Amino acid sequence: MAKVLTSRAENYSQWYNDLVVKADLAENSAVRGCMVIKPYGYAIWEKMQAVLDKMFKETGHSNAYFPLFIPKSFFSKEASHVEGFAKECAIVTHYRLKNDPNGKGVIVDPDAKLEEELIVRPTSETIIWNTYKNWIQSYRDLPILVNQWANVVRWEMRTRLFLRTAEFLWQEGHTAHATSQEAIEETTKMINVYADFVENWMGVPVVIGTKTENERFAGAIETFCVEALMQDGKALQAGTSHFLGQNFAKAFDVKFTSKEGKLDYVWATSWGVSTRLIGALIMAHSDDNGLVLPPQLAPIQVVIIPIYKTDEEFEKIKSKAKEIQTSLQKHNISVKLDDRDTQKPGWKFAEYELKGVPVRIAIGPRDLENGSVEIARRDTLEKATYSENTIVETVKFLLEDIQTNIYNKAKQFRSDKTTSVDTYDDFKKVLDEKGGFILAHWDGTSETEEKIKEETKATIRCIPLNSQPEDGICVYSGKPSKRKVLFARAY
Amino acid sequence: MAKVLTSRAENYSQWYNDLVVKADLAENSAVRGCMVIKPYGYAIWEKMQAVLDKMFKETGHSNAYFPLFIPKSFFSKEASHVEGFAKECAIVTHYRLKNDPNGKGVIVDPDAKLEEELIVRPTSETIIWNTYKNWIQSYRDLPILVNQWANVVRWEMRTRLFLRTAEFLWQEGHTAHATSQEAIEETTKMINVYADFVENWMGVPVVIGTKTENERFAGAIETFCVEALMQDGKALQAGTSHFLGQNFAKAFDVKFTSKEGKLDYVWATSWGVSTRLIGALIMAHSDDNGLVLPPQLAPIQVVIIPIYKTDEEFEKIKSKAKEIQTSLQKHNISVKLDDRDTQKPGWKFAEYELKGVPVRIAIGPRDLENGSVEIARRDTLEKATYSENTIVETVKFLLEDIQTNIYNKAKQFRSDKTTSVDTYDDFKKVLDEKGGFILAHWDGTSETEEKIKEETKATIRCIPLNSQPEDGICVYSGKPSKRKVLFARAY
Repeated sequence: MAKVLTSRAENYSQWYNDLVVKADLAENSAVRGCMVIKPYGYAIWEKMQAVLDKMFKETGHSNAYFPLFIPKSFFSKEASHVEGFAKECAIVTHYRLKNDPNGKGVIVDPDAKLEEELIVRPTSETIIWNTYKNWIQSYRDLPILVNQWANVVRWEMRTRLFLRTAEFLWQEGHTAHATSQEAIEETTKMINVYADFVENWMGVPVVIGTKTENERFAGAIETFCVEALMQDGKALQAGTSHFLGQNFAKAFDVKFTSKEGKLDYVWATSWGVSTRLIGALIMAHSDDNGLVLPPQLAPIQVVIIPIYKTDEEFEKIKSKAKEIQTSLQKHNISVKLDDRDTQKPGWKFAEYELKGVPVRIAIGPRDLENGSVEIARRDTLEKATYSENTIVETVKFLLEDIQTNIYNKAKQFRSDKTTSVDTYDDFKKVLDEKGGFILAHWDGTSETEEKIKEETKATIRCIPLNSQPEDGICVYSGKPSKRKVLFARAY
Repeated sequence: MAKVLTSRAENYSQWYNDLVVKADLAENSAVRGCMVIKPYGYAIWEKMQAVLDKMFKETGHSNAYFPLFIPKSFFSKEASHVEGFAKECAIVTHYRLKNDPNGKGVIVDPDAKLEEELIVRPTSETIIWNTYKNWIQSYRDLPILVNQWANVVRWEMRTRLFLRTAEFLWQEGHTAHATSQEAIEETTKMINVYADFVENWMGVPVVIGTKTENERFAGAIETFCVEALMQDGKALQAGTSHFLGQNFAKAFDVKFTSKEGKLDYVWATSWGVSTRLIGALIMAHSDDNGLVLPPQLAPIQVVIIPIYKTDEEFEKIKSKAKEIQTSLQKHNISVKLDDRDTQKPGWKFAEYELKGVPVRIAIGPRDLENGSVEIARRDTLEKATYSENTIVETVKFLLEDIQTNIYNKAKQFRSDKTTSVDTYDDFKKVLDEKGGFILAHWDGTSETEEKIKEETKATIRCIPLNSQPEDGICVYSGKPSKRKVLFARAY
């Protein structure tokens, strides 16, 4: 059948957009930059949320909810936050509509102007630390380990579904601690939670590292990140965890009395991942036939498709299919039986390939006779005939194997696309001809970092935590450097 | 110990507010009318969400996500929607801040004015039906059974935590159908789901009925509701389900081709419940000592408190307490062991009474000797000594019994506070002296309904579905009436 997607080789960006729309994950809405997350896309987000939420709770966090709106003046309180944070945001200035006296419809009531404008939260540090002020008096009130699942808005000019949208869904953890050390431990604990999730659930290998001063979150002392590599050789920041020091506590005057009776400012962290992860998931694994979903996060893990000619065959096969569905569901495998008679099997095969369902079971009249089924795996597109008697074991094995296989494939890809260079010429050549991650010496200055970005569009993705100290010279300035850092062009 | 709450008798409204704040459920934020839902309050919402979400999925619905913002012009498209819906809402007019050239801080950039203002969704019918237009061509695309968990904003002037806030959390189901009958079936199915949830999980009895034209949702043909009675004799609308006919399909031009090849407008429903349910939960069951939570929705179902004098005793009792905790947890009972040595048992007893934990287990040195524990139930405050050997059975029984008991108590209260009257004098007398639900004949006109509301502040809560036809005369106008309807003063 005709390919419904532009191929990756032809136009990667178009392939991505086609895929998101045609696999029914999301679409653009009538509101500029805001997306509609469709049921199939949202089901992936729900799976992600369930796993992450459990991880957050197991590490001692509780959920809470803070206001959507932030008074404008709050943004000015933490100087580097307001300076560094993009000022593109949605601003509420009025609180009432009225009927248009000159005709149909409604207009904004000019009498209903707010005294102070409200900003739709682009992130919640300010409103949360203004709240924590009232929650914290003594060391007994610490730590506060709170997470929020919420929507946020950043008025992006150029948007792409999941990757960069004006409104997106995310979680933001905001914790408060009595000591610097405890806050740093929390920051690293949570970046490791993210790495665990992205690697073991999404099947996407990551590099854990710290951001340079330039790329750091506005208001943070240190930003940890997990960086993943997409199939077009561009990097994607999958999650961040910030050690905020006492910056927000000072800005909002949040002090506590220590065990020793000393008054001090509270130490803070914040950390978040967003619906952007769905974009990463798509771009890391999918192919020209459609989505490839990791079994651990696939809304439908197995689809069963009956193949028949006569009504009698259809009834018999459907009954067998239901039996198989039930036996798999007993093992907590999510199974869809597509017994619609309005679509042909070939159409269904293509449809579930497009939607990335990891395992497809087809049952035809001959299978019924032989007690067999045909099973295809989405990652390799291989298919084979299996005995019906071992179907649970076979499917269980395949789901695990696909999860492992797509991770290994992505890891191999990343390994192939990670290049260590020693000269700026090599740096530029690799970037243009091969793409991917580049390890190179850097002199540690923002000036050099910015020059390289201007000239090549590559940024320092992170200073990898596992990087070995190694004396060398900066590829750009020739000045001494103590370790290689990770560069890439990025989403 | 000193009572921390104003009593209900003294000042019901103050009691409610004290309770919400002191039990750590929620508090007012720095943003007018917006609340902060604290971890303990949010944990109740999460429990509610989990149960409702399962019910929605079991009835065939999927979740999706639509934009926070709605273009202003969308509101004018469905005439009765814009006319009937409150025009108090948050309006986004600008999309950028800039540094104040005259000093510190930021100002709204006047150059960044939106061409068309955006409204922060007060409800999503308009943006969703504008989206459905692209999803629906044929009867094969129907039904669409979608739900959204989201925040919404209605600019309320007088707010009360959970009951009426500018921003609140809710779910809104929006379904599309090929026939009127199917849409009506969906509307009633969902009001029954709500009734099931409120009665069997929250332990609050409800009256299911339809709203009068006056009280109907703006744009609906018929609004079904579940109405509950609070301890102060006021009614609270706990959930609504609307049959929207073809109104929104016509406003947004959403047509489909039927099996027979005929083009017709799509039929719609919408239905929702919100964080308001937490307010209902509190006001239905709680007492002057604090919250009384139904075990089915309590974040902590059992608390264990060690009572000891010496460190040696403490260690032994703590070890026994952990054993009991583990054995209860194995039966999916959520148990908190409060072994803090910074607070006395008496303080803890009061604290968990305030927080409505259904079952409290205290273990002292004598218990350790006797193989016994002291168990107190929150609803009746009764306590008794039980053998340690039967603790799982005892706790299981108590959790079920408390759930049943608080429901029965609330049902008895409602029954005592439901009065059938035949004259307007009796109507007013009952309303002022006794409160509660009043069943009275009404002539079916909006004029009479409004007069009664003006004079008594009572509204028609609903026309109960189970009401028996009964000839009579309207208590206000003396005109003929076919059935009694349910009046009350309401939240």
